[in-house]
Amino acid sequence: MLKKYVYMFSEGNADMKDLLGGKGANLAEMTRIGLPVPPGFTITTEACNLFYKTGEKLSEEVKKEIYTYLEKLEKKTGKFFGNKINPLLVSVRSGAKISMPGMMDTILNLGLNDETVLGLAEKTQNERFAYDSYRRFIQMFGDVVLKIKIYKFENLLEKMKKNNGFEEDTQLTAEHLKELVKQFKKIVKKEIGEDFPQDPKKQLLMAVEAVFSSWNNPRAIAYRKYNEIPNDIGTAVNIQSMVFGNMGNDCGTGVAFTRNPSTGEKKLFGEFLMNAQGEDVVAGIRTPKSIEQLKEISPKLYEQFVKITEILENHYRDMQDIEFTIERSKLYLLQTRTGKRTALAAIRIASDLVHEGLIQKEEALLRIDSKQLDQLLHPTFDTQALKQAKVLAKGLPASPGAASGKVYFSAEKATKVAKNGEKVILVRQETSPEDIEGMYAAQGILTARGGMTSHAAVVARGMGKCCVAGTSTIRVNEQKKEFIVAGKTYYEGEYISLDGSTGKVYLGKIPTVEPSISGYFQEIMQWADDIRRLKVRTNADNPKDAATAVKFGAEGIGLCRTEHMFFNEERIPAVRKMILSKTRQQREKYLAELLPMQKEDFKEIYIQMGERPVTIRLLDPPLHEFLPNQEQEIKTLAQSMEVSFDELKDTIESLKEFNPMLGHRGCRLAITYPEIAVMQTRAIIEAAIEISLEKGWKIKPEIMIPLVGSVKELQNVKKIIVDTIDEILQNKKIDLTYLVGTMIEVPRAALTADEIAKEADFFSFGTNDLTQMTYGFSRDDAGKFLREYEEKEILDQDPFSSIDQIGVGKLVELAVKLGRKEKSNLKIGICGEHGGDPTSIAFFHKVGLDYVSCSPYRVPIARLAAAQAKIINK
Amino acid sequence: MLKKYVYMFSEGNADMKDLLGGKGANLAEMTRIGLPVPPGFTITTEACNLFYKTGEKLSEEVKKEIYTYLEKLEKKTGKFFGNKINPLLVSVRSGAKISMPGMMDTILNLGLNDETVLGLAEKTQNERFAYDSYRRFIQMFGDVVLKIKIYKFENLLEKMKKNNGFEEDTQLTAEHLKELVKQFKKIVKKEIGEDFPQDPKKQLLMAVEAVFSSWNNPRAIAYRKYNEIPNDIGTAVNIQSMVFGNMGNDCGTGVAFTRNPSTGEKKLFGEFLMNAQGEDVVAGIRTPKSIEQLKEISPKLYEQFVKITEILENHYRDMQDIEFTIERSKLYLLQTRTGKRTALAAIRIASDLVHEGLIQKEEALLRIDSKQLDQLLHPTFDTQALKQAKVLAKGLPASPGAASGKVYFSAEKATKVAKNGEKVILVRQETSPEDIEGMYAAQGILTARGGMTSHAAVVARGMGKCCVAGTSTIRVNEQKKEFIVAGKTYYEGEYISLDGSTGKVYLGKIPTVEPSISGYFQEIMQWADDIRRLKVRTNADNPKDAATAVKFGAEGIGLCRTEHMFFNEERIPAVRKMILSKTRQQREKYLAELLPMQKEDFKEIYIQMGERPVTIRLLDPPLHEFLPNQEQEIKTLAQSMEVSFDELKDTIESLKEFNPMLGHRGCRLAITYPEIAVMQTRAIIEAAIEISLEKGWKIKPEIMIPLVGSVKELQNVKKIIVDTIDEILQNKKIDLTYLVGTMIEVPRAALTADEIAKEADFFSFGTNDLTQMTYGFSRDDAGKFLREYEEKEILDQDPFSSIDQIGVGKLVELAVKLGRKEKSNLKIGICGEHGGDPTSIAFFHKVGLDYVSCSPYRVPIARLAAAQAKIINK
Repeated sequence: MLKKYVYMFSEGNADMKDLLGGKGANLAEMTRIGLPVPPGFTITTEACNLFYKTGEKLSEEVKKEIYTYLEKLEKKTGKFFGNKINPLLVSVRSGAKISMPGMMDTILNLGLNDETVLGLAEKTQNERFAYDSYRRFIQMFGDVVLKIKIYKFENLLEKMKKNNGFEEDTQLTAEHLKELVKQFKKIVKKEIGEDFPQDPKKQLLMAVEAVFSSWNNPRAIAYRKYNEIPNDIGTAVNIQSMVFGNMGNDCGTGVAFTRNPSTGEKKLFGEFLMNAQGEDVVAGIRTPKSIEQLKEISPKLYEQFVKITEILENHYRDMQDIEFTIERSKLYLLQTRTGKRTALAAIRIASDLVHEGLIQKEEALLRIDSKQLDQLLHPTFDTQALKQAKVLAKGLPASPGAASGKVYFSAEKATKVAKNGEKVILVRQETSPEDIEGMYAAQGILTARGGMTSHAAVVARGMGKCCVAGTSTIRVNEQKKEFIVAGKTYYEGEYISLDGSTGKVYLGKIPTVEPSISGYFQEIMQWADDIRRLKVRTNADNPKDAATAVKFGAEGIGLCRTEHMFFNEERIPAVRKMILSKTRQQREKYLAELLPMQKEDFKEIYIQMGERPVTIRLLDPPLHEFLPNQEQEIKTLAQSMEVSFDELKDTIESLKEFNPMLGHRGCRLAITYPEIAVMQTRAIIEAAIEISLEKGWKIKPEIMIPLVGSVKELQNVKKIIVDTIDEILQNKKIDLTYLVGTMIEVPRAALTADEIAKEADFFSFGTNDLTQMTYGFSRDDAGKFLREYEEKEILDQDPFSSIDQIGVGKLVELAVKLGRKEKSNLKIGICGEHGGDPTSIAFFHKVGLDYVSCSPYRVPIARLAAAQAKIINK
Repeated sequence: MLKKYVYMFSEGNADMKDLLGGKGANLAEMTRIGLPVPPGFTITTEACNLFYKTGEKLSEEVKKEIYTYLEKLEKKTGKFFGNKINPLLVSVRSGAKISMPGMMDTILNLGLNDETVLGLAEKTQNERFAYDSYRRFIQMFGDVVLKIKIYKFENLLEKMKKNNGFEEDTQLTAEHLKELVKQFKKIVKKEIGEDFPQDPKKQLLMAVEAVFSSWNNPRAIAYRKYNEIPNDIGTAVNIQSMVFGNMGNDCGTGVAFTRNPSTGEKKLFGEFLMNAQGEDVVAGIRTPKSIEQLKEISPKLYEQFVKITEILENHYRDMQDIEFTIERSKLYLLQTRTGKRTALAAIRIASDLVHEGLIQKEEALLRIDSKQLDQLLHPTFDTQALKQAKVLAKGLPASPGAASGKVYFSAEKATKVAKNGEKVILVRQETSPEDIEGMYAAQGILTARGGMTSHAAVVARGMGKCCVAGTSTIRVNEQKKEFIVAGKTYYEGEYISLDGSTGKVYLGKIPTVEPSISGYFQEIMQWADDIRRLKVRTNADNPKDAATAVKFGAEGIGLCRTEHMFFNEERIPAVRKMILSKTRQQREKYLAELLPMQKEDFKEIYIQMGERPVTIRLLDPPLHEFLPNQEQEIKTLAQSMEVSFDELKDTIESLKEFNPMLGHRGCRLAITYPEIAVMQTRAIIEAAIEISLEKGWKIKPEIMIPLVGSVKELQNVKKIIVDTIDEILQNKKIDLTYLVGTMIEVPRAALTADEIAKEADFFSFGTNDLTQMTYGFSRDDAGKFLREYEEKEILDQDPFSSIDQIGVGKLVELAVKLGRKEKSNLKIGICGEHGGDPTSIAFFHKVGLDYVSCSPYRVPIARLAAAQAKIINK
């Protein structure tokens, strides 16, 4: 049998995307189920590949087949190609299997020439319409087929309007358009040295070749490379008979959603214009009518339309975005596709479709983009107000939400004015743990440096607070209390607004809209919980975050950092004295001062969490982070410690490090200063005992040791912890179950996870640090070149946002395998920033982790993503 | 058959170490080959294990067997245990399979009591000798068996001497010693509540039990744990009949080496004393005679002795260290073991033994401790002078050799005074690339901070220059030009001396001895070269180092860093302007200034290396390392660049990084500033072309890209390099073969080595950085806690000195496997500091690398270690 390169729409179906492309298969499918689609045919992707095999020319075989199908189309439509009286006009559209920007899009009105235009005018009794269509056709064909710069046509159009004092295209008469057609044809002649092709068949073959050629233009190649789309799948071409919504008052065109794309309500949502083309609906010169008003114009058409939307929804089992045209009172569908929707709508539609029996819960969950859920949990800017706002700069969308406030440049000042009721935006070069209080007080945080996992970004996400980070175009001068952007200076007290979901920084105040959580949301989350295997915990260091996370469905705390607790104003003096102590005795004295406060921290957190598991990490950052830098602060501290300024400054200096990220931190602190670990262990355990007794609960604390690289480090610190606990329990004659586990965040820990598993009750991957060390990227510095890396396509994505599966991920997989080989029931989780990223969550599900832990506001996202991962990998 | 727990020496042999322990097997072997060993028997290690099984008691079965063997011993010696007239006296010694300090060592003269002492006196006609022996026995037995504090005996001895106005023990008469024996027995009675045991059999059983018990004393347990010796192998006990060198003038004792342990000369080397005990030879009160003088005393004995040494050498096929005793003109051997020797001797002996036909070349090579070779390549301190020297401090033995000089605290000053002929020791807090010239000018380098792979250590080793690093007890004040140690201040211009092999810092000037390389050395190296599979290259950045390395046998350059070239006084201004350029054009202008200088660098190196391969690494450190810190320097630079001081300072500030180790460096520089890579490539290739033409050589440069973490980085930079080379070769119409490879020093590169291998002509492991990132240790900071880690036994060794085989090594193995899977003939080397460490070299051999590259002075060590690795793994 001869190979078949062309299919009528009526010969195909939705499953033939490989051969017919996405658009072709879709048109075929609608035809197949009996919907009124203007007839047409598709030239296959195989014809495209043949085109390249035969030196970028259409083979005679294919040409012949096209002609055959053209005849079939003429028969079907009763119109004829090149016929003066009843001309067949067609659109030519590209359509690969995967929708691909960069390729040729559309040519309309093909088949028009100096003769058929007359037929069209005659047939429609509308000369202006006919010449306008011709003029548009020459322009489109000139642009995409003949490669003539489009401005050459547009200049002539503008000139024509200007000469006549017109504002709008619509003011041009048939005569004007006739003249333009002449001028356009002249340009073509001048540019390509030939007359504009008058033979419709020639027009068609040229257009088909242009589509095939566009498959290999540089933009399309780059897009495929970047998206890892194979080069050899080719594109199809769709030839469809034209229908017109602008032939007269019995014509029209419109778009509609089968449900409300903003709210999800099950009610047709759309608009149309009579005697208009698609672009008129979008242009907004005439006010479109709502879809219900079609009933007034033609109850029959409206009824037919409603029926069609029902068929489409039932067929595609999802809300559809439909384009339609009415030509001479006849309804045609030009396109249907799954409609884009807000998060709110996505959730409601998914839920409704399940209740309507159209889809299963699993499919409903897969329909929701988990990343979109952020919209539901954070305030957003009022859409109208936003249109007027001036964008000052664009940084990284580090933590979602929208906020307006007055600019302040120090945490102290921010805290102070916020207490007086002012709305504050904290602006910093970058933030550090000392800024925590100021960040709490602020509505939002803006930084000039740092990436998606910088301190500001991580902490803000934890707080559910809006943050724009790494805004490299602004220069912040904290001393002068100002920032400069594009040569203009902005001072303390001026209003700005931040959109943490887009990274945009606006001048002035913009009203925000508060989010509301619907019953649909709760229902979807419940379904997700029923399905998922991964548990979802939260990263929380304080009772407020813990409570928020529980509200969002967190099943425990996967990471309770203890360092933020040390920065509290009341404690920092004791912390500093402890660090600068010369002897263990002295250090223990200050630690004893800290013990009751630290214990109180944990009690408050336990109260919020009930009997849910709480993993508390021992002190992690290098001690110099807690020390003062300012001369005055050092002086004060020296006085209260009764040492000389010089001596204290010397000590502080000697604690500094070249690469603090790889420095004296994590378990290395507990090994060299075991007394710190002893104090923290006491606080964790005594708090657990007291709350357990008070509430009648069984609290089972999980103590986590950071930055372990070798099993001996773990053994050493574990012994300190276990000895301390044994002593407490013996003294109190009480029993308490607890776990001692380790972070896996140093590559060596992953490589030797079998040895480490012997000593660990659980593993928790710290994929932030693991990424830093595996890639050799300092997340505080890498922002500078990572952006250039993304531009140069060296990195597909920021490895701190979504886990690098082939590098860092290989270590994670290896550690899971080695760890479970040693201890088959080893509990393994992840508490890095990746715990809230859906793609990463899918990976963690696949490699068999037990839980992910993420910031409170990411908990719902993680719950949904975990369920999706389970469904996909079933 | 009943289990046998006791063996006569004549029943055993050298292969029975498991059962008889090392010493027992050795005594058995000597007995077996007919050497005059005092007869005795060994109680096996199995008896020791039984002892622990039966509640730390000797079982009746073992006791009975001991008695049986005692009788055999009596028969063999003709002496009898507890016999008044002809008493058998024995020594009791522990002896595990592996020699183990911390266990009980020796009890002599066992069998003496109030009666047998009389017999001994009568038989030897020497009452003083008999009571002195008895007195010593009670003291030893009291100490190690009865656990009586030894000072209680020593006090009495001192008192006795003092009361009599004696200085030496030898002045005590028989009467004094009789009195002492009485007093000693009283002490025993007082301390243990019982009389000193008079029954020799009881003495023997108690001593055996004491040996077995000592197997589990805390010191022995700790030693086994640290050295990973199993706890269940147990110790044997050796019971040997006593011979005495101090019974009269026909008695004597001595030690001898079968060859000269300092020079290796094949000539007996040793000394002896007549009428003396072993400890008298060591104590140095009487001057011992040289072994040749034995000929004068008894030609027959001397002849016998020479004969025996020949038998021993032939038997053990190595130089022996022998202890002997002459009792009543009869020669006895008490011990033989392989003798310790200097590197010089080790090489000569190994060579001689091969020529004598005693051993094969392979065995000869294994006999030499490759680490010891350092002694042969560097000056050492005069041994006598060293004895008088005062040790000021002890740091890390960072680069071997010995040096004296005046202290200077800045590279500039050091360079200046060195030009005037002064010998200089450069003392710095730590060094940085700016100090290179000063380091060259200095005799040695002393730093207060930094570890074995700190800048100072690495660079000094490269230069073959003595360096003591990380001397944490000294406080250096570079501004005040002084350093303080133990409260005392030392100023600029004072003399100190450094021993880079021990890490000791001495006050004042100590004369040094220059090394000399012998023909033996050349011969051994030739054998090593014939055998080894691993190639040995060198790390060298300049013609001087390259020449040194070639002299030492380097087969190429494995790592030519280019950053040191940038610090040169003439170039640094252009380098700085290049870095601070605002535009690519500006940067290219300054790079053009650098090009001819850089080209000259490479030409000089090629000239030294001939056609040997030279691997040149593109610029690696973060650019801020090249920028000035001092206000004055910044001002000067700002003027010459015609920008404002503030602006320049701002720019410099903005380039600083939190963690430069993980920062904007390595290939990241080439990606963001491709023009730097272009300039370096031009310099490398044009230099190669010019020298090739000039000399008629075929130079094949190897360009190495640092810090690659993903294949896309490699692709990006490789393209820059290849494009640049293509252009040069096309312009010059010339052909040149070159390689483009990558460092594997980022964990991710190792994890994705299969992908990376697709683009790389070779791999070179940078195990310094790989260790930093895999462990999460900053080598500039880790010194602070790594020492504590070693003390707490968390680390067995500094992972920067010897590769961590189970963690970092796993990545190396994985990368080799993945790389070769993709490209089976991929050339793989290592150019980190571990390239000169014998243990690491053995590992690199095993995992299949093609070459190691190390600093010039380590090349001979690497050649030998590579051969040893091949022999062992054959």
